[in-house]
Parts: sequence; structure tokens; C-alpha cells
Amino acid sequence: MLVTILGGGGFLGQKIAAQLAATGTVGRRAITGLTLFDLNTPKAPAKAPFEVRCLSGDLSDPVALGAAIPKGTAVVIHLAAVVSAAAEADLELGLRVNLLGTMAVLAACQKVGGVPRVVFTSSVASFGGGQAALLADDARQLPGNSYGAQKAMGELLLQDASRRGLIDAVSIRLPTVIVRPGRPNKAASSFVSAILREPLLGLPTTCPVGDDFGVWVCSPRRAVEWLLYAAAMDTAPLGLDRGINPPGRRITVGEMLAGLEAVAGPQARALVTAAPDPAVQAIVGGWPAEFTATRARTLGFSVQEDVESLLRAFIADDLAATRADRAAG
Amino acid sequence: MLVTILGGGGFLGQKIAAQLAATGTVGRRAITGLTLFDLNTPKAPAKAPFEVRCLSGDLSDPVALGAAIPKGTAVVIHLAAVVSAAAEADLELGLRVNLLGTMAVLAACQKVGGVPRVVFTSSVASFGGGQAALLADDARQLPGNSYGAQKAMGELLLQDASRRGLIDAVSIRLPTVIVRPGRPNKAASSFVSAILREPLLGLPTTCPVGDDFGVWVCSPRRAVEWLLYAAAMDTAPLGLDRGINPPGRRITVGEMLAGLEAVAGPQARALVTAAPDPAVQAIVGGWPAEFTATRARTLGFSVQEDVESLLRAFIADDLAATRADRAAG
Ligand SMILES: NC(=O)c1ccc[n+]([C@@H]2O[C@H](COP(=O)([O-])OP(=O)(O)OC[C@H]3O[C@@H](n4cnc5c(N)ncnc54)[C@H](O)[C@@H]3O)[C@@H](O)[C@H]2O)c1
Ligand SMILES: NC(=O)c1ccc[n+]([C@@H]2O[C@H](COP(=O)([O-])OP(=O)(O)OC[C@H]3O[C@@H](n4cnc5c(N)ncnc54)[C@H](O)[C@@H]3O)[C@@H](O)[C@H]2O)c1
Repeated sequence: MLVTILGGGGFLGQKIAAQLAATGTVGRRAITGLTLFDLNTPKAPAKAPFEVRCLSGDLSDPVALGAAIPKGTAVVIHLAAVVSAAAEADLELGLRVNLLGTMAVLAACQKVGGVPRVVFTSSVASFGGGQAALLADDARQLPGNSYGAQKAMGELLLQDASRRGLIDAVSIRLPTVIVRPGRPNKAASSFVSAILREPLLGLPTTCPVGDDFGVWVCSPRRAVEWLLYAAAMDTAPLGLDRGINPPGRRITVGEMLAGLEAVAGPQARALVTAAPDPAVQAIVGGWPAEFTATRARTLGFSVQEDVESLLRAFIADDLAATRADRAAG
Repeated sequence: MLVTILGGGGFLGQKIAAQLAATGTVGRRAITGLTLFDLNTPKAPAKAPFEVRCLSGDLSDPVALGAAIPKGTAVVIHLAAVVSAAAEADLELGLRVNLLGTMAVLAACQKVGGVPRVVFTSSVASFGGGQAALLADDARQLPGNSYGAQKAMGELLLQDASRRGLIDAVSIRLPTVIVRPGRPNKAASSFVSAILREPLLGLPTTCPVGDDFGVWVCSPRRAVEWLLYAAAMDTAPLGLDRGINPPGRRITVGEMLAGLEAVAGPQARALVTAAPDPAVQAIVGGWPAEFTATRARTLGFSVQEDVESLLRAFIADDLAATRADRAAG
């Protein structure tokens, strides 16, 4: 089968590509070709037992997108997005990539000569609710940010196209994926990874929210597993509703820091100092911190492990590369 | 104040224009100019106490749309749409007008030099649920048709733009508006008006669903009142949530026919014969038939009157014109 990863050069795209190269399959079907597509030419995964094409281009260029989703493509994993802070800073850019780009993906998928599975990465940011909320599977998406609004619109588009039989979409509303490797960025959620990653690198960092602040999170391993499960699952039980709240885990900042201490010692924990930031609190305070995720469990999505396992996975998978990246300056 | 009605040549657009001409105001503010915009040049309302411009053009033409929404426009009533059956028949057309057209409206509104009120007409078709459902104000929109999906996407776009302070939008999710004047059309909901209108014209008609079939309806008078209330209301209490389920009324087919008999006699009622149609039932059976509409009541939206008042309003407002239109062939 032919598989395409849009946004294949990004954080999750590279992890999925590596996983596909390691197993050679999606579900139980052998992969015959993989295309990675991103603004800059993505890196190919090592030792793939199938042909890998790495293409650069913009979602909004139909020719480039057509090349990225060739005839016969069976699975499209659509990760390409302008993420939260950038979409908030530039409405037009966010709409162009996150909404019109997703329309372009739908148009390209209609040319493959079949009904491709499309795995779309939506986000918890498409919901409101705040710290107190426990969101059920039928919770309404009333986003408090442009990125979330664009993700919710993308879901509606792909859900309707699935109903029409043009594609076969599953939208996974990812939690905040931690620990994100690399560097701190300007996203309001940056601290959620930073308070774990920076101390593991031996670096000091600050925390803008209190110890009791809860976040709905998952590990990169779990995110990859969910997206590949969505790529192969039987979609008949989904009916009209193509949106999945996967079984992430609500973890408080206090639990994260306790996990950090358990895994890396009190000296690591001591590198995190409190620096309450009302501006950050105002943004992240609106995000939902917990979901029932009942439907996803019933459908067979795996459940997020605890914070210590998540930290050990980061140390095993990403710490060395992150350290090398930082050392490179 | 300057007011624009997009889709001003349609059923509700013409009724709103007539109402504005009669009162000369929106809320308590005097109208200084009205623009009606539609694919074909709309008819101007009679005896307007302000300048009326009637423009033809397509929503997707930014120049035409810019002319329709001139500098200083304070209120835009956006009714232009590819409606349900047409949007289902042609996905691309529906997306182009209902989604991209609404994006174009947002772009044009950003050029008026202020924060215009935008009244958007969404629809009960943006919900699923079916006959058994009683939808609360926070019910999720999971549409079973492309028109409804496009309306829900338009709502998200305008809600987010309102949060950003670019416009000040209110989306009214209209019930099925009956009695629609004119002729039967190919919409699956056509029968809801036809079983009342045709007998009042002395014409036979058939009913594809049973007497116990419930429909969430409102009269054109009520729809006009709601849309103009939305054009002038204080939006501060709405917060993020710009979508309103107005207080329509659940009426069964049996109640409609009883109302018809009460208003026009048993000979009118006898013109409606049962002709169960599983294809129509499959479509309309998915529409929600009742809403709590609690929030709208609290916000001051008026409540739909009973079926007999609704019929008498049609007789007073539209029967003569409909008769003349039919006689014209
Ligand atoms: N990482 C998280 O915590 C998280 C949480 C919720 C949802 N998501 C979603 O999951 C997806 C993947 O997340 P990620 O963390 O890997 O993000 P990422 O930013 O690392 O990767 C996204 C990739 O999309 C590419 N891209 C952006 N615009 C493009 C365009 N116009 N054409 C082609 N490619 C373009 C970027 O270059 C980038 O490589 C995204 O859609 C994101 O919104 C991520
Ligand atoms: N009437 C109802 O029962 C009902 C119910 C729910 C929602 N609504 C919504 O309310 C609005 C008004 O309804 P209506 O019954 O008056 O519909 P209508 O079809 O009578 O009027 C819509 C108008 O939009 C115009 N239009 C379509 N495409 C256009 C384009 N590309 N550029 C410019 N104009 C365009 C049409 O020419 C038409 O005159 C619509 O948005 C409809 O979806 C109506």
C-alpha cells in the first residue's frame, strides 16, 4: 500500500515515518511506498523496507500536493498545520493552511482512484471548557483560539466528505504531546514540555502556572500509536462521527514535577522555579484538561501511561538527539 | 446606519427589506442606506425612507462584494447560500458559496472601517438527532448533510472572527421556515410548506411522512423578527458562543393538517393525501425536531406562535402573491 505523510518533516511526522520504516506495515498490510511532504524536504527514515520519496512543497499548491498523493494512495496522514501561536498571530495564514490546505487535501484525495483513509490531527484546542471541565465524547467544539476553530472546521469538512464516500477520515484530537524535543518555542503550551525537558538537559526553566494546574497530555509514542491505529481501524462503527478524543491523561504540574524528581532526582526538580504569568494563565486556562474518552477506549485506542513512563520514554527516544541539537547551538 | 443584505433577492431577504422599509430602523437606529445584493438584481422594497441600492453579483467576486459592503456599513445580514438539496447535489458549489463565500464576507467586512454586526443564517440542518431528540443549547453540531456541515463551518469562522474583534457576529440557526410562498421545490423539506400552501391555493398535494412526524418550524414573520433582533442586540452576554437556537416550535404533520382544517375547512384538509416516501423519510428523519432554546428566550428572542396564527399570517402576507405567481404559470 502507498502511504503519504503531509507535514512529514515535523515532530510527529518524523516519528511516524520512523515507526513505519521499523515495521514496514500499517495495520497488517505491507507498505510499498511512503511519501513525506513538507515545506522543506523532510528527512527519510533510516532502513525503510520500501521506497521513500521526500518532497518539498506547500499544501496550497495543487501540483505539489498531487505529486505528494499519487494515484493508488491508500492512507494519507495529514499533520501539516500552522500551529496555535502562529495561527493566532496571523488569521489569514492559519485559514490558508489549516482550512484551505485541508480542502486541497480533500481535492487531491479524490484523484487517487479509491477511497483513501485520511487521518487528520485535530486538537484539544478545538474545545473550550477550562480546568474544571470533564468533556464527554459528544462535547461541543467551541474553541477560544483560531487554530482550534480551523481544526474544528477541518473536521467538519472531512466528516462530511466521509459521509459522501469520497474519503474515509478519522480525526484524532490530540492532547498536548509531551515531552516535545528540541527547543522552547513561543506556544503558550511550551512550558508543559519545557518543565520536564530543560531539567533533563541540566538547564533551568520557569513554570508560569501553579502546581495544581492540570493538562491533558499524551506521549509521542502514544500519539504515533493512535494515529497509526486510526490509519488501519475499521471505520464502520464510527458512523457519521469521525472525531475521536483519544485516551490521554490529565496530569497536574505538581505530578509532572514529582515524576521528574522520581526519574532524575531532586537536583533536576530544583531547576524548575515558579514564575506565575497571568498572560499565559489566561490562554492555557481556557483549555480543557480532561476528557472521558469512553468511545476511543471502546474502539480499541490504547490508554496513555503515567508520567514516569512518559519521562523514561523521552529519555530513551529523544534526550540524546535533543542534547546534540542544543550543543549545535 | 448602512445596512447590507446578502442574498437580498431571496425569500427572507425580500421580507427583511420590506420590514426595514416599513420601519426605517434597525433596533432604534435610523437606516441611512440599504444595499440588496444577489445573483440577480433584487427588487427594491416599496416606499423606503432611505436610499436603496440593488446590486447583482456573486459572493465569490471580491469586487462585487466590496461594492455591496461599502465603507461605514454597520450591519450585514448574510443570507446568500446554496441551500440543502443543491449543496448535496454539488459539493464543490456548496463549499464555494457557503464556505468560501462566507470567508469572502468576512474579508469584505474587515474593510468597512469598524466592527460590523454580521447576522448569519445557519440552520437546524447543522445538527443531527432525529425525531426523538430534544437538543440543548450546547448540543454538538454533527450534520448529516453537506449544507449543514458548511453552515457549521461558517459559524466557527464567524465566531472566531468575533472573538478576535474583527466583526460582531450572531448566527441564527433557523428552523424550517413555513409557509414558504411560491412553488414546490426539490428540497426534501418542500412538503412541510406544500401540505399547507397547496391546499390554500385549492390544489391537491401529497404528504411523504406520517401524521406523527414532528418538524421544528417558524414563520417568516418570526424569522425576520429574530434576524433583526440579532442585528441590534447587545452581544456582550454571548461571550464566545455566537450561535443561537431560536425558540421555534415543534409541530407534527397531524397538527399542521388540523390547523389547516381549522383555518380553511375540511375541503382544504382533504386535498392532502398520504403518499409515504421512504427516500424522503430517510433524509428528513435525521433532522432534529425540537430544541430547548433556553438561551435564546433568556436573551429576549420572541417565541414562535401556534400553527393557526402561522397559517393566518401566510394568508395575510403571501397568499395573494403566490396565487398571482401561479396564475402567471
Ligand atoms: N504536538 C502537539 O502537541 C499537538 C497537539 C495537538 C495537535 N497537534 C497537531 O498534530 C499535527 C502534527 O503536530 P507536530 O507537533 O508534529 O507539528 P509540527 O509543527 O512539528 O509539524 C507540522 C509540519 O507541518 C508543516 N507545514 C506547515 N505548513 C505547511 C504547508 N503550508 N505545506 C506543507 N507543510 C506545512 C510544517 O513545516 C511542519 O513540519 C499538527 O497538525 C498539529 O496541529 C499537535
Ligand atoms: N427558508 C428556510 O426554511 C431556511 C431554514 C434554515 C436556514 N435558512 C437560511 O436562511 C438564508 C435565507 O433563506 P431563504 O429561504 O431566503 O433562501 P433563498 O434561497 O430564498 O435566498 C438565498 C439567496 O441567496 C442567493 N445566492 C445564492 N448564491 C449566491 C452567490 N454565490 N452570490 C450571491 N447571492 C447568492 C440566491 O440567489 C437567493 O436569492 C439562507 O442562508 C438559508 O440557508 C433558511
